Amino acid sequence: MSTAGSMLKTHPRDLNGVDHEVVTKCIEACVECAQACTSCADACLGQESAQELVECIRSNADCADICAATSRVMTRHTGHDANLKRSVLEACAAACKACGDVCEGHGSRYEHCRVCAEVCRRCEKACLEMTKSLG
Amino acid sequence: MSTAGSMLKTHPRDLNGVDHEVVTKCIEACVECAQACTSCADACLGQESAQELVECIRSNADCADICAATSRVMTRHTGHDANLKRSVLEACAAACKACGDVCEGHGSRYEHCRVCAEVCRRCEKACLEMTKSLG
Amino acid sequence: MSTAGSMLKTHPRDLNGVDHEVVTKCIEACVECAQACTSCADACLGQESAQELVECIRSNADCADICAATSRVMTRHTGHDANLKRSVLEACAAACKACGDVCEGHGSRYEHCRVCAEVCRRCEKACLEMTKSLG
Amino acid sequence: MSTAGSMLKTHPRDLNGVDHEVVTKCIEACVECAQACTSCADACLGQESAQELVECIRSNADCADICAATSRVMTRHTGHDANLKRSVLEACAAACKACGDVCEGHGSRYEHCRVCAEVCRRCEKACLEMTKSLG
Repeated sequence: MSTAGSMLKTHPRDLNGVDHEVVTKCIEACVECAQACTSCADACLGQESAQELVECIRSNADCADICAATSRVMTRHTGHDANLKRSVLEACAAACKACGDVCEGHGSRYEHCRVCAEVCRRCEKACLEMTKSLG
Repeated sequence: MSTAGSMLKTHPRDLNGVDHEVVTKCIEACVECAQACTSCADACLGQESAQELVECIRSNADCADICAATSRVMTRHTGHDANLKRSVLEACAAACKACGDVCEGHGSRYEHCRVCAEVCRRCEKACLEMTKSLG
Repeated sequence: MSTAGSMLKTHPRDLNGVDHEVVTKCIEACVECAQACTSCADACLGQESAQELVECIRSNADCADICAATSRVMTRHTGHDANLKRSVLEACAAACKACGDVCEGHGSRYEHCRVCAEVCRRCEKACLEMTKSLG
Repeated sequence: MSTAGSMLKTHPRDLNGVDHEVVTKCIEACVECAQACTSCADACLGQESAQELVECIRSNADCADICAATSRVMTRHTGHDANLKRSVLEACAAACKACGDVCEGHGSRYEHCRVCAEVCRRCEKACLEMTKSLG
């Protein structure tokens, strides 16, 4: 079991009916996406053609920040607030969609953008699944 | 002029019609709220009655993380994405509303909660003003 | 291969002799530790005995913030600055040591503290290995 | 009084002899520097000459992340750990020094780099003052 899953299993509070597998997947996807986007921004910046990748670097930076914040909010279950979670998940899905679109557009030329686009798609999907699971 | 304002004034890109004063206020409010919520969580934790402030500590932690991410997204103007900004501002206003409500409930007993509630209200308002300004 | 490893492999710049495996392990350990500490803080907060876990919650919060920042600094290779990396790794190892000690002290009573202590030890070790690898 | 100062004044714990003015200045400088560096990175990215500013964008990104983490660690006083604070302040001063140097180098051409360099110098100084105050 992943660390996020192991930690979740030991939580003392009732998780308000939240599905352990769905929330674990969502946390892991957000954490993975935050790191991949930080990495993609830096790789784009290191390309000789960085000038053409300005929009991608910016999307990556936003997506990294929002995914990082979302991973933290989704990790917390004490004093559960489903409405706030829903709103944060929506912003995160929007950031992943936007960044996934930009990265996909460069995916055939830059391998880091191709990998990052896949990670963004996965995270967007995990946020949408999580939202559904909140009811 | 504040540092956030001075920095914004020197930005090389057209800000897509975003009002400088409104966006500067929004960034400053988010930065202030992230710090105040981190401080309130720590002060609650330091109270002998920390056990009764569990919900407040959790709201503070979420609000700090979301405000910090929002301050960064709102600081970026290169490769402007109004839809993403709108979605992030909505999540931030929701976090400030939730945290402001919880802190206000303890405001008469704990001065740090009273000050923090005021900061949350200010930040919620600044996010709503900013959303309106995005059109 | 992990996402962090896949992203690193596609980086356009020479990594200044940094060992791919060592830096990947370090990034992954920091990311894992940031999430585990956020989770442990929330689990401690959810315990009926939260009052006794105040020091642990605080150590977790510091460790989460420092590990998150370190994971980002270590993910960046464009414009490499070995001195800054060394200084950040030292702070991160100190945070992991402190948090690992506090969590270990509660490990026999709280499973989340036991798991988190292990993660902190792993991250501390990964930061020290990384420092050595920087020369 | 600033919000950071007002919040600090209401903290229930003894601050272990830490000087209120020095720590307030340090927190404010870190928060200001995190925002200015995020802003400078984005302004550099928006320049037609972004390609020449790659090193500056990267320094800004590191400095923003480290200052943000430092502002949070310095905001916490419950369960005080002077050694960890010292280590984090050292990393933050190093990040501010590095970023201040890079920004200063472009200060005559780019107003955002000139302003950001000043903010970095101020934050470096505040971290060093804070370290001295920890004894």
